[in-house]
Amino acid sequence: MSSRKELANAIRVLSMDSVQKAKSGHPGAPMGMADIAEVLWNDHLKYNPTSPNWPNRDRFVLSNGHGSMLLYSLLHLTGFDLTIDDIKNFRQLHSKTAGHPEYGYADGIETTTGPLGQGIANAVGMAIAERTLAAQFNKSDCAIVDHYTYVFMGDGCLMEGLSHESCAMAGTLALGKLIAFWDDNGISIDGKIDDWMERSVIDRFKSYNWHVINIDGHDSNAINKAIIEAKAVVDKPSLICCKTIIGYGAPNAAGTHECHGAPLGEDEIAAARKELNWNNPPFEIPADIYNGWDHKKLGANEEKAWNDKFAIYKDKYPELALEFERRIAGKLPDNFVLEMDKFIAKTQTDMPNIASRKASQNTIEAMGPLLPEMFGGSADLTGSNLTNWSGSVIVNANNANGNYISWGVREFGMAHMINGIVLHGGFKAYGATFFMFMEFMRNALRMSSLMKIGAIYVYTHDSIGLGEDGPTHQPVEQMATIRAIPNFQSWRPCDAIESAVSWKIAMLRSNAPTALIFSRQNLKPIERNSLQVKNIEKGAYVIRDCEVKADIIFIATGSEVALAIEASEAINANVRVVSMPCCEAYDSQDKEYKDSVLTPGVKRLAIEAGVADCWYKYVGLDGDVVCMTTFGESAPADDLFKEFGFTVQNVVAKAKALIT
Amino acid sequence: MSSRKELANAIRVLSMDSVQKAKSGHPGAPMGMADIAEVLWNDHLKYNPTSPNWPNRDRFVLSNGHGSMLLYSLLHLTGFDLTIDDIKNFRQLHSKTAGHPEYGYADGIETTTGPLGQGIANAVGMAIAERTLAAQFNKSDCAIVDHYTYVFMGDGCLMEGLSHESCAMAGTLALGKLIAFWDDNGISIDGKIDDWMERSVIDRFKSYNWHVINIDGHDSNAINKAIIEAKAVVDKPSLICCKTIIGYGAPNAAGTHECHGAPLGEDEIAAARKELNWNNPPFEIPADIYNGWDHKKLGANEEKAWNDKFAIYKDKYPELALEFERRIAGKLPDNFVLEMDKFIAKTQTDMPNIASRKASQNTIEAMGPLLPEMFGGSADLTGSNLTNWSGSVIVNANNANGNYISWGVREFGMAHMINGIVLHGGFKAYGATFFMFMEFMRNALRMSSLMKIGAIYVYTHDSIGLGEDGPTHQPVEQMATIRAIPNFQSWRPCDAIESAVSWKIAMLRSNAPTALIFSRQNLKPIERNSLQVKNIEKGAYVIRDCEVKADIIFIATGSEVALAIEASEAINANVRVVSMPCCEAYDSQDKEYKDSVLTPGVKRLAIEAGVADCWYKYVGLDGDVVCMTTFGESAPADDLFKEFGFTVQNVVAKAKALIT
Repeated sequence: MSSRKELANAIRVLSMDSVQKAKSGHPGAPMGMADIAEVLWNDHLKYNPTSPNWPNRDRFVLSNGHGSMLLYSLLHLTGFDLTIDDIKNFRQLHSKTAGHPEYGYADGIETTTGPLGQGIANAVGMAIAERTLAAQFNKSDCAIVDHYTYVFMGDGCLMEGLSHESCAMAGTLALGKLIAFWDDNGISIDGKIDDWMERSVIDRFKSYNWHVINIDGHDSNAINKAIIEAKAVVDKPSLICCKTIIGYGAPNAAGTHECHGAPLGEDEIAAARKELNWNNPPFEIPADIYNGWDHKKLGANEEKAWNDKFAIYKDKYPELALEFERRIAGKLPDNFVLEMDKFIAKTQTDMPNIASRKASQNTIEAMGPLLPEMFGGSADLTGSNLTNWSGSVIVNANNANGNYISWGVREFGMAHMINGIVLHGGFKAYGATFFMFMEFMRNALRMSSLMKIGAIYVYTHDSIGLGEDGPTHQPVEQMATIRAIPNFQSWRPCDAIESAVSWKIAMLRSNAPTALIFSRQNLKPIERNSLQVKNIEKGAYVIRDCEVKADIIFIATGSEVALAIEASEAINANVRVVSMPCCEAYDSQDKEYKDSVLTPGVKRLAIEAGVADCWYKYVGLDGDVVCMTTFGESAPADDLFKEFGFTVQNVVAKAKALIT
Repeated sequence: MSSRKELANAIRVLSMDSVQKAKSGHPGAPMGMADIAEVLWNDHLKYNPTSPNWPNRDRFVLSNGHGSMLLYSLLHLTGFDLTIDDIKNFRQLHSKTAGHPEYGYADGIETTTGPLGQGIANAVGMAIAERTLAAQFNKSDCAIVDHYTYVFMGDGCLMEGLSHESCAMAGTLALGKLIAFWDDNGISIDGKIDDWMERSVIDRFKSYNWHVINIDGHDSNAINKAIIEAKAVVDKPSLICCKTIIGYGAPNAAGTHECHGAPLGEDEIAAARKELNWNNPPFEIPADIYNGWDHKKLGANEEKAWNDKFAIYKDKYPELALEFERRIAGKLPDNFVLEMDKFIAKTQTDMPNIASRKASQNTIEAMGPLLPEMFGGSADLTGSNLTNWSGSVIVNANNANGNYISWGVREFGMAHMINGIVLHGGFKAYGATFFMFMEFMRNALRMSSLMKIGAIYVYTHDSIGLGEDGPTHQPVEQMATIRAIPNFQSWRPCDAIESAVSWKIAMLRSNAPTALIFSRQNLKPIERNSLQVKNIEKGAYVIRDCEVKADIIFIATGSEVALAIEASEAINANVRVVSMPCCEAYDSQDKEYKDSVLTPGVKRLAIEAGVADCWYKYVGLDGDVVCMTTFGESAPADDLFKEFGFTVQNVVAKAKALIT
């Protein structure tokens, strides 16, 4: 039987050899954390390599994602569908083994990591999801949700503000089943960290209400004992601080930043082989090492034990079991679309003259009873974002059985915790803040998109229309920039009806994220026929048309749609008005529909209280825009719209200049 | 003589009355922090209301910027150029008293605040600037730079990750002259903070190497003693934790989140007047209160003492004194442009085939000896960003007399600390990271723009050209989104020559920020005549032309310029190639120049390894783009350019489709 050291060394050599072959990559972290990974994956982690998505598996997150070869080595050695050829193809086009772990590229990758700090925030989200799903489904005689979330992280993760936001939240929520390992190697890319990293991570985490354990990260017994201790602490998350040597095993490079992010070189690799007493050529792993790692049988047994338990649960609580299966599968209730369409039709009939943020709240209220998987929250702006509803029950340290979190003033952390909740499964999660602070969390939106997961971002106070809070709070370039994220959809509804539709679409998009962008101020409801209501879903549609061929098409979104209609009535010309709440949805329609809305050859004028950049795509070089060109100002909203040219007079003047 | 309480109450009533009159705003924080502000501004802060920019003034930052009426009250009462009419115009169009404090709108506002956590990060930057400027200029017999940086912050600031990044850095650098006050009122917008905010801010800051003092924030003696204690601790920043009651003085609203962000209402205001024993009508301040606050004479004396000291310094060290004056004025050395133009001409002659990040480093090396005000750094990517030079001297806890900081893995914090350094004065500061992580710090770029300050952001690894690190690290939508920030310039140079020019422009832009975006991979140098070299500064210019009128214009940036030229040589058509390293600079040229580059009526094809959105502005509806439409992949760079269509073949095919 192979020793623990030998098993860990398999990770080390696979990592250094793959990086060498790819001529790029990060050997230091996998070699430094190999001993920790070996104990965790062989003695504690609950997983089944041949059934990677088994719902009650433990979650493992490599927050220091540049150490991807650590994860790929583990997946290969333990028996996941990741061959030695996949390992040899590290960092090559369309391989499973990308430079950083990419969710969806290979079984066993629980989240995409690379941008530092993000994995730990995802892991906190997963632990929140586990805890609340358990509270919603477990019975005193049968706990079907009961797993740990483990996360590896490095100094970089801890320096990032994201780690503060998410770890402070984890402690405040007392997430006892979250266990993090800090790779305390004293080295980051610029060298020894003393000049730029805070000294006392331990005290910092204690201040967050974490249980902290200090060990030698190369001592397998100590690692094992620490994990046992961490599991025993049920009322706090645990941080296991592991003193390690970066690049452990490379006799000259170890302990220096040289081995962080570059191949070791043939000579150092040869020396490391000697140091590790590893006599096999690259990519050849002895059978006894494979045997020592193989988790297929153990994993199948672990899953079987759970399946047996779930069978009992299903027997005793058949409806709950079906509901659990539906939620884990991410399937919406059968009646969802029907009920939403009823609600949308009723809203069109009622024509409420309200802010779209209020319309959003009304929609949440309508969806709430339909969707027990709805898990909402706000970054300390609940009363402004209007994201709660009559059925909201707060999740806090004392109560897991809820559906709403006050996330605190932590936008980026919120977004990545939401990503973690969505990745865990069982929830439709949304989080809210002012649209301006989308910027704080922007990279999390990108990660939702890259991972193709259905996170929902609610943003209120969408433009200069928020008024007196002034330019720091007034989105100007944000609509343009959010539209630029691939695979993302952003909706800026013009009234309560479009707001309801945008929520329906967001809920239906299970494989891509959506942002819903709402106004602070009231928006006049607009009359529509049923075809127009239906066409809202297409992202753009003709909301007012002329009887003859249009001289000009006005394209508007959000609060500017009413202005466009008003201007179309004031101008002496044939105007078509198009409402375009979601450019990305419109872009995905077929050419025929697109041309039926924006007739080719007709001049266009785009009207949006945001920067113009993205609108030339629709108006071209011979169209024009009524948009922002500067930051906003602090004043009542009506004064601002006038100041910045969002008036009938200005729209008419610009339109006339185009068509005469 | 008015009592301290009476003086503080003047802030309270001005704040509640102004918010009431404006029908919006935040009375809670000003009323809660009035006692602290009164002691600080009357007994400690060194400032001259009639000479607000005196270089050795203490800096005061209101990080909880929503409490703007606190600052406006102080500026008005102490004698700055801010009248009672300005106070009455709170939150009205073009008033000095915007919803949040806006830098440049009124004297005495040291930075724009509102987005939480940012003010404290700015303040850390100011303290870094003070310390290093002191080290560079002070003499043992004459300290001309010697002031404190004070900052007020609330729970929101502390929950934000920014506070972790900046405060951990402040402790690590042992910034003894930074003194922060925490408004510990236990309330945030969602209510009592217990469910979402960590309990032990005190231990957290101790873990950062801060000196922490706990006081009752309504006890003036305790406040005074705490400030004296904090000043005496010279080897650590100090946090004074002030237990306060939000909305202190409003008998019913105090202590609740109701008074955070909304007017108190007439009844509660009347009750507060009674509670505070304040018998004057709104906006009428008794003469003895004004007298108690008036700082004009004291401030003039404080400045005079410094002026006298500086006169002695000037006498003893005339050259240093001139240099100090030049740097504080933000004036570049007289020979800067001449020397840079020589360096640019030499680079055009030498034609180095190097990565633009390496070209950037060469330029930094050339600028270093010219610009002692240069203060560089990287967020733990020095060896990748190549932002150091042979004259780089590290600033750390033990050495202030340097010009380079390893910022650690703290992108957002770095950017806002740089904003603080620039706001302080005396430096041309730049900071670097991978272009992807611009997203982490995006709102800081926006704040540089909004404040009109010359921060410089260096971003390397600009596209899929970075290769194997994969989609999490490959910018795709980032060029489009950075171009959308008003008042901002972003440069993506195509070779070493354009790289050198972009640095020159960035240094000259003292009233607006600039981003310089460089490649990881080598970029072939391109031949130019001297007019072309000169026209680089215009943001776009004809880099290759045809002899007759062009059938089509290729517009390209960065690594795609060489591809555009190659394709122009391969196609059987008359092609003009335009290099457009900076769209924003091109947009600011006159129509004649713009039309001379992009001839009206000629078809255009834009080529950039980023999303297309911003390019339709130049190619219109009948042009086309060779751009990214998805995220990148992990593979060697050459494989990726091929995979995503950045080939001569594809460019030629798209061009042919346009012109035939």
